[in-house]
Amino acid sequence: MTRVRVNAYSISVDGFGAGTEQSLANPLGVRGEELHGWAFATRTFRTMFGEEGGSVGIDEGFAARSMEGLGAWIMGRNMFAHSRGDWSDDGWKGWWGDTPPYHCPVFVLTHYARAPIEMNGGTVFHFVTDGAEEALRLAREAAGDRDIRIGGGAATIREYLTLGAIDEAHLAISPVVLGKGEPLFAGLDLPALGYTVGQQVLGENATHIVLTKQ
Amino acid sequence: MTRVRVNAYSISVDGFGAGTEQSLANPLGVRGEELHGWAFATRTFRTMFGEEGGSVGIDEGFAARSMEGLGAWIMGRNMFAHSRGDWSDDGWKGWWGDTPPYHCPVFVLTHYARAPIEMNGGTVFHFVTDGAEEALRLAREAAGDRDIRIGGGAATIREYLTLGAIDEAHLAISPVVLGKGEPLFAGLDLPALGYTVGQQVLGENATHIVLTKQ
Repeated sequence: MTRVRVNAYSISVDGFGAGTEQSLANPLGVRGEELHGWAFATRTFRTMFGEEGGSVGIDEGFAARSMEGLGAWIMGRNMFAHSRGDWSDDGWKGWWGDTPPYHCPVFVLTHYARAPIEMNGGTVFHFVTDGAEEALRLAREAAGDRDIRIGGGAATIREYLTLGAIDEAHLAISPVVLGKGEPLFAGLDLPALGYTVGQQVLGENATHIVLTKQ
Repeated sequence: MTRVRVNAYSISVDGFGAGTEQSLANPLGVRGEELHGWAFATRTFRTMFGEEGGSVGIDEGFAARSMEGLGAWIMGRNMFAHSRGDWSDDGWKGWWGDTPPYHCPVFVLTHYARAPIEMNGGTVFHFVTDGAEEALRLAREAAGDRDIRIGGGAATIREYLTLGAIDEAHLAISPVVLGKGEPLFAGLDLPALGYTVGQQVLGENATHIVLTKQ
């Protein structure tokens, strides 16, 4: 049975999921990388980016589970690219090189049509211009009985939470304050949408919160 | 040397410091009590309210320190009373009975003048109509070399953070989402105000965050 999941989505204590002014130099916005320190330190993420070692404790447990059992991803256009508006012919194929860490279909929400891009290792980027619900329908078709992960950013996660489509959301609160950026909770009434906190665990470098849907 | 502190200020994962619709029945707003479950379970708070027992672990450590070394408190009018507007002659002397747990001068920010109220055990409520900075000046005079605690609510803490007046703020993130209420971080750019996360510790029933000022 397919579950729709958010995993390892990092936020600051003051609730921002990314910094301001995303750019080629700052894929996660200004200071956005600081939100992900806990993840970068884990064995799972280090392996993903071709490095050795990494932590093997609580944070690693959440990192490892974040990549398990996935049959499709959905992400907002700004998680795929720092560009805005119509796609230019700049050859951009995402932030992740020739072999992205997804290894399955990835549905990118965008207002601008674009042909799919097939990458090494099983990742295919599909560009969906018909909205979040259509992307979810396509992801369900693609995922079979595996899970669907909503990658981000904050606006995309808010949209699927608002639709009540997310079964479980793992957030990692990093010990930083950003002051400005992409607010995850803005305008979201999570209890009204059926969500409660199912779990709170302190890892080595972040507090892990799992929201579950009733 | 007097320090201006926030202690044991509880917020939800989505950043609310109190629920909506504060009333005599709901001093902390709807569902606001759920934010304070970690505190109510500690020995310090149980003792304060005349009960026995209570936890003696990490949460208790933060609870005990929250009451130590204080020479004055400052709180917003809504932390003192659920009424709004001009003071009526209803005999209201705060939520805490004849012997409030403060045992020192408490400066209540209000737009409506009122004579001081002397309580048992050393607590005197003073009503300050000249604003947050004047209340802080009076509190410094009263506190001597002891510390000043900014009690709440969210708007009062935001005001003193914005003034850069708070040296250290201990927040307790409780494992609940509220969806609506009094947002602590709204419009606050904590890094721009000089604040960083100095400590992150998981207690038995909350994650403790200590913001420090650079």
